[in-house]
Amino acid sequence: MIIRVLGSGAGGGCPQWNCNCRNCASVRSGKPGFVARTQSSLAVSANGADWVLLNASPDLRQQIEAAPVFTPGNGALRASPIKAVVLTNGDVDHIAGLINLREAQPFSVYATPRVLDVIKSNSVFGILAAGIVARIPLELGLSVPLAGAGTDLGLTIEAFDVPGKIALYLEDAAAGPGFGTQPGDTIGLKISDAATGESFFYVPGCAEVDPALERRLKGASLIFFDGTLYADDEMIHQGLLDKSGERMGHVSISGPRGSISAFGDLEVGRKIYVHINNSNPVLDANSAERRAVEAAGWEIGYDGMEVRL
Amino acid sequence: MIIRVLGSGAGGGCPQWNCNCRNCASVRSGKPGFVARTQSSLAVSANGADWVLLNASPDLRQQIEAAPVFTPGNGALRASPIKAVVLTNGDVDHIAGLINLREAQPFSVYATPRVLDVIKSNSVFGILAAGIVARIPLELGLSVPLAGAGTDLGLTIEAFDVPGKIALYLEDAAAGPGFGTQPGDTIGLKISDAATGESFFYVPGCAEVDPALERRLKGASLIFFDGTLYADDEMIHQGLLDKSGERMGHVSISGPRGSISAFGDLEVGRKIYVHINNSNPVLDANSAERRAVEAAGWEIGYDGMEVRL
Repeated sequence: MIIRVLGSGAGGGCPQWNCNCRNCASVRSGKPGFVARTQSSLAVSANGADWVLLNASPDLRQQIEAAPVFTPGNGALRASPIKAVVLTNGDVDHIAGLINLREAQPFSVYATPRVLDVIKSNSVFGILAAGIVARIPLELGLSVPLAGAGTDLGLTIEAFDVPGKIALYLEDAAAGPGFGTQPGDTIGLKISDAATGESFFYVPGCAEVDPALERRLKGASLIFFDGTLYADDEMIHQGLLDKSGERMGHVSISGPRGSISAFGDLEVGRKIYVHINNSNPVLDANSAERRAVEAAGWEIGYDGMEVRL
Repeated sequence: MIIRVLGSGAGGGCPQWNCNCRNCASVRSGKPGFVARTQSSLAVSANGADWVLLNASPDLRQQIEAAPVFTPGNGALRASPIKAVVLTNGDVDHIAGLINLREAQPFSVYATPRVLDVIKSNSVFGILAAGIVARIPLELGLSVPLAGAGTDLGLTIEAFDVPGKIALYLEDAAAGPGFGTQPGDTIGLKISDAATGESFFYVPGCAEVDPALERRLKGASLIFFDGTLYADDEMIHQGLLDKSGERMGHVSISGPRGSISAFGDLEVGRKIYVHINNSNPVLDANSAERRAVEAAGWEIGYDGMEVRL
């Protein structure tokens, strides 16, 4: 199984179009220790020829062009190795990229009914004709084989609910602390190679590593996990946005309730942070925070990173 | 007035993610005479510091990063030289890029009520908080000053209806030959420098150069015009899509009713094709079609092209 990080950044990427923070400015100026990051997406293949995207970021067209493996190379005039897309929530940085998969090319979109409803209720996604692009509802806790465009991808996925928050643009201020969040708004994925049985987890958005998630992840061989913020209040402290990670539905890397601490006893073989926000000091390869993360056994994902299981 | 072509391609760009046509394959292989094209957008500035985008393509984040002039360089932590966006229709290649302008940055969106209704009815565009990003309805035939984020851009625009078609994903098959198309679904723009009075036209989508459009464009100093297809049936002939230019709402470059012929007597000073589809043979700098277009006094727009008036 081949796993490719298409985009390791959170919403906005790094640099972000309107941001002058230290990380964004350093990437623009080519400062050593900083690399550009497009928005959050992974690609997975069991055979190296047929691929599923885990989330479709607004940068998808650029990400496809940057990866020769996605070149439509089978001789047909119109074709693509991308046979399916799985969505883990309704955030724009995870669904807007679907619009780039226009032009009457068959593939399958897997998501929870909650997220499929968002796709259905936004007419712009009608550019993916329903008769050509299948919408397949994911049932939480059920392992299903991935297929698209008549191709079995040789992969199975299990979707499971994780603590999170409804997409920002769908928040209902009147609905109380959860802003209208319901099960299925934020999911994690277990992706397995049907032939080898090897598997990994993908949890790009997570508000809290609760006991249920700990039990599920215990002893996993590989996880790509929510690395949005290093500290819960870093965006506020940097004067970028008056919101904490908790408010945004993202557990921080550091702190007593952070992911480094939470994963301390989970014996996960390989731990990689993705969905890393441009405010996160770990994006500086020479920062104390990067050293702390790496000392704790975590890796910082990067665009083009490839992992084989 | 500075005019910059951010994207010279039509929907899908060139290369298109799922396309193996001669143009797309030649761009991928780096064949001489072919260049990559992102999707349809122009940027205009009267002072070189504050900019308006004419359409927001799905490639906008990439286009912004490619143009240092858009770097948020005024010292504020969050800022942008982009103060306004004007939309000429509801096509995904013209509106999806708005999603890239997230993150609580003030600017103005100008469009006809028909297109603003599409933005309003698609919740994903709620990522641009209404209290921060102003939606300003354009009245056809009225010249209005462009402003955004409290800045007067020193430009005025006049929107005018042009023969066209409603966006593909909004087509109503039951509505007859126009698929539900109404005035305001496709507009052209006259952009003027308020100080110098210099002006140019932008018409990236046009189904027919009718007498009203001829009268309006007669003697113009500069136009960026719909160069989607060279021949009305080229996509059908190439086996790419079973649709004619007429069906898609795009007048062809060639032929007795094509734009070269229609502009023959209009005495327009400088004529530049944009919104060029990947099927168009003019994208090959060494093609007979490119020679024919240039012999007729037209230029082929390219990403990064800059024109000053």
